[in-house]
Amino acid sequence: MSGNYSRIVLASRPRGAVTPDNFRMESVPVPELREGEVLVRNRYLSLDPYMRGRMSASKSYAASQALDETMIGATAGEVVDSRHPRFAPGDAVTGMLGWAEMGVADGAHLRKVDAASAPLSAYLGVLGMPGVTAWYGLNQIILPKPGDTVVVSAASGAVGGVVGQLARLNGCRAVGIAGGPEKCAYVVDELGFDACVDYKLGKVAEDLAVATPDGIDGLFENVGGEVFDAALARMNAFGRIALCGMISGYGGKPVPINNIGSVLVNRLSMRGFIITEHMEVWPQALEELADLVASGQLKYRETIAEGLAAAPEAFIGLLQGRNFGKQLVRMA
Amino acid sequence: MSGNYSRIVLASRPRGAVTPDNFRMESVPVPELREGEVLVRNRYLSLDPYMRGRMSASKSYAASQALDETMIGATAGEVVDSRHPRFAPGDAVTGMLGWAEMGVADGAHLRKVDAASAPLSAYLGVLGMPGVTAWYGLNQIILPKPGDTVVVSAASGAVGGVVGQLARLNGCRAVGIAGGPEKCAYVVDELGFDACVDYKLGKVAEDLAVATPDGIDGLFENVGGEVFDAALARMNAFGRIALCGMISGYGGKPVPINNIGSVLVNRLSMRGFIITEHMEVWPQALEELADLVASGQLKYRETIAEGLAAAPEAFIGLLQGRNFGKQLVRMA
Repeated sequence: MSGNYSRIVLASRPRGAVTPDNFRMESVPVPELREGEVLVRNRYLSLDPYMRGRMSASKSYAASQALDETMIGATAGEVVDSRHPRFAPGDAVTGMLGWAEMGVADGAHLRKVDAASAPLSAYLGVLGMPGVTAWYGLNQIILPKPGDTVVVSAASGAVGGVVGQLARLNGCRAVGIAGGPEKCAYVVDELGFDACVDYKLGKVAEDLAVATPDGIDGLFENVGGEVFDAALARMNAFGRIALCGMISGYGGKPVPINNIGSVLVNRLSMRGFIITEHMEVWPQALEELADLVASGQLKYRETIAEGLAAAPEAFIGLLQGRNFGKQLVRMA
Repeated sequence: MSGNYSRIVLASRPRGAVTPDNFRMESVPVPELREGEVLVRNRYLSLDPYMRGRMSASKSYAASQALDETMIGATAGEVVDSRHPRFAPGDAVTGMLGWAEMGVADGAHLRKVDAASAPLSAYLGVLGMPGVTAWYGLNQIILPKPGDTVVVSAASGAVGGVVGQLARLNGCRAVGIAGGPEKCAYVVDELGFDACVDYKLGKVAEDLAVATPDGIDGLFENVGGEVFDAALARMNAFGRIALCGMISGYGGKPVPINNIGSVLVNRLSMRGFIITEHMEVWPQALEELADLVASGQLKYRETIAEGLAAAPEAFIGLLQGRNFGKQLVRMA
């Protein structure tokens, strides 16, 4: 194997909002494989909010993305060449090969997936990190009981959609928060949530009160900021909060929270988590999720940008909530 | 038994800060005992921040204090008359008889204490609710490991002082936050904390950074507001926060929190609690605390106001941080 492939590197760190010139596309030679390595042609790149955190130099839970290096990202593709005994050309795999058309990984860092039982792209969404994230936050932190009201923000997204559907399967009232009538209709009509609050109407607190007449027992927070604050005020005694994302804060300045007193008044439990730190749950979570997808009980939607060059604009759109379901980039 | 006794009732709900005219002292007749009841002459009344919450009509974790009724409060005293088989005149007891010189309680709601092994007043502090509160938050939520840094606000108070001393006994670095040089000196010199930050110097964030060079692993929060916000920003990965009090918010308006993102970035666990909902831990906690007091390993201080009529001003002082250690009212 020789020749060149395209990749996108971090050209500069954003000051405030991410702009296209924070990225640079370039062509690099395909490297020689060393023992234990695998060459993969990426078919799908996953775009996720956590990437925004990595682009900053500030302290976060993970190391910053290095300048002039391939942007971090989860990928799904096919093995082209292998010097690892577990992989052969043609195998479908997922990995963290980044914003690139091809990539080389240690075989130990790749996961072989069954492209016959589900579309390859699903392994970056409902059957990948977003699905396991939803499963973990719900089952390990929120601990839903039948009759509970579970609220999830970014409800039409890759994580949120799974949270609400799993909550429903657990006998809970599932209430989503999403932006715009189209997303809210999708959350209720297609995903089967009991209700969805459109935060773009500008009266989240009032609308959330109507949608949660019995208060909130479990909150899966993907957004932070005003929406989170409004949900805090609706929590019932002994409610549980899984803190998974704070998109609102990624722009740079923190969003002040006024209702933190609810944690004391209502004796809440709140926990932040990063799903890659809980690898022990992945096998069980993926097995359950795959069964639910196969039986049609778990639905999902994807927004697909065509071609690696479209990744920066698609990522900026994701941060602005322009995607609908899981945001992917498809490569030829 | 006949005659009258003095009590203090809630005359009006505070608008903003508590004022003396929110209270009214009055004389009422000693009631006849019914079967199972006990008449107690109160020697000490405990004044605690939670009373501020009860004075408001707004939703809290407990019912509001009723107007024109005896102000709620924990008391320690002696049995004067009894129609309950477990109690006899002269017995030392604690209960919730309120801001009053005397009171009648169902014997089931009184706890007999050993006035020979510790001063009666200690059963309202280190060997009562404040002590158990400290024990629970530390041992059931913060789960201290040797080498951890544990920070506690209101460190010279009845709860905070116990938290830091127990943390030290667990091999932790104990850092207090308190108001003024005198309280900070007491926390370090008498209670043995490793350091104390004086929030009145107006640079809590900087001073806390100096006092916690390795960050914060466990935070016992008694205050809320700016001090809590500063501590949030210093939390280490997988830190634990026990949320016990939010004095700053009791004045009416919530204090906005800017660093809630730390819960996600550092994968923190935070839990609010009310110690009266965890009665199952009281026997073990009280046994351990009594042993530590008896062996001189656990120290405490009291601020004593003389006479029931002094209770309103003493309570207002408590809310303003004018007390030093456990705030009590002594009655003749």
